[in-house]
Amino acid sequence: MQQYFVDQATLTLGQVFTIEGDDFHHLVKVMRAKPGQVIQVVAANQVAYAASIQTIDKATCQLQVDQILQDNCLIELPLDVTLACGISKNDKLDWIAQKGTEGGMACLQPLNLKRDVAKWQANKAAKRIERLEKIVKEAAQQSHRRQIPQVNDCLNLIDFIRQVPNQAIKLIAFEETAKVGHHQVLAKTLSQLDLNQEVLPPLVMVFGSEGGLDIGEVEQLQAAGFKACSLGPRILRAETAPIFALGAISYALELSKNGENLL
Amino acid sequence: MQQYFVDQATLTLGQVFTIEGDDFHHLVKVMRAKPGQVIQVVAANQVAYAASIQTIDKATCQLQVDQILQDNCLIELPLDVTLACGISKNDKLDWIAQKGTEGGMACLQPLNLKRDVAKWQANKAAKRIERLEKIVKEAAQQSHRRQIPQVNDCLNLIDFIRQVPNQAIKLIAFEETAKVGHHQVLAKTLSQLDLNQEVLPPLVMVFGSEGGLDIGEVEQLQAAGFKACSLGPRILRAETAPIFALGAISYALELSKNGENLL
Repeated sequence: MQQYFVDQATLTLGQVFTIEGDDFHHLVKVMRAKPGQVIQVVAANQVAYAASIQTIDKATCQLQVDQILQDNCLIELPLDVTLACGISKNDKLDWIAQKGTEGGMACLQPLNLKRDVAKWQANKAAKRIERLEKIVKEAAQQSHRRQIPQVNDCLNLIDFIRQVPNQAIKLIAFEETAKVGHHQVLAKTLSQLDLNQEVLPPLVMVFGSEGGLDIGEVEQLQAAGFKACSLGPRILRAETAPIFALGAISYALELSKNGENLL
Repeated sequence: MQQYFVDQATLTLGQVFTIEGDDFHHLVKVMRAKPGQVIQVVAANQVAYAASIQTIDKATCQLQVDQILQDNCLIELPLDVTLACGISKNDKLDWIAQKGTEGGMACLQPLNLKRDVAKWQANKAAKRIERLEKIVKEAAQQSHRRQIPQVNDCLNLIDFIRQVPNQAIKLIAFEETAKVGHHQVLAKTLSQLDLNQEVLPPLVMVFGSEGGLDIGEVEQLQAAGFKACSLGPRILRAETAPIFALGAISYALELSKNGENLL
């Protein structure tokens, strides 16, 4: 069922609301929805509702809430994951934005790293962020997320380190760690989490661009409390590693917890 | 360090051997390697060697084995994973081939499924397989795999089911399973594996194309012993799911096993 995010903080049964703009275009022109059709909408409270289309005008669509959809398990990861990635060439960051959203990331943080092969020019950065936000929103709708991940402005390493919350779980996906055969840092870190806490700390993981990570930058991050971790014994490309990491994190926190993430 | 696969069953210290063809082109024309440079080669025995370039001719390159490289842990997954995927449009299967190889798959099995949006014409199938094999080989080299994954000819569902080994672990990535909140099938299955066995059974996982899986086909697979499993509560695209699954499998069998996969 097609899903859209709406701006309302919450919705009530029987409430009539409007869809317009890009979502109207997608619903009516692309999906060719008709009156009577039921779609899924998610309000800012992260609750999903089934709503049926009442009327379609030239630029707006009126819907009515039929049902509050109960999730039988948490849709979102139990903690906020930020993927902090060096800038890669072409559409690699688009890929990370899209698949990172499917995989459950809360935030994409582009980073200006030493060995980045590509750089964002200052006058084009705003447009690039806008593009990534569009990709993230569409991916969040398609993967039925309950929140739209954030896309942050690009930061250099020092500024990034400065704004990472103290209590965050801080990791660096660094394959040199893999080479010495220590694959357990991620697992140890995740297994030490008390999943019964009201609010879990956020997890921030740094990934290099296709140029990789500079050892000086890794040491800077380590000095700020980041731990180098491996994503296994095979070398993963810059755009593969974040998605692979989310699969691992999902396995640790969602797929292998017997009933612990049921509401 | 650049890696290439060689045809020799095994190599010995000091042995001189030749690289030619596509690998010669890549090594000499693309990487611009020079005499004295050291590269990594993997023989058919899945052992890696460091070899230095001796001479470069017009179409061949002579190298000498300097060192047998000891892996301090298994590079390959401890069991063979086959990704059996419906045919998606455009280059989605290319993505699965490449990232599946980085993630450690042993085999890519294209499937003709009911809801596939794309089909391979019989006269073009051979060329498509050839292309996927090229992608897989390059990815295996770049990710430093010890074996090149296989790419099988496309099969329809009945023929596929017929040739799956009896002892294989058989799974279907089916999001309807996720909707009822049962996320533990994959974890239960993997945790029941005795990792101390000499040879682990292969794991075969079926994925729909972007058209998804037909419920009749899921039932056919289930009748043949396949278990429907979830890859989490978020909907993953056809090309994301296999990579995400490999991240989960790697977490279960490599990243969270304390020292059990050390040689």
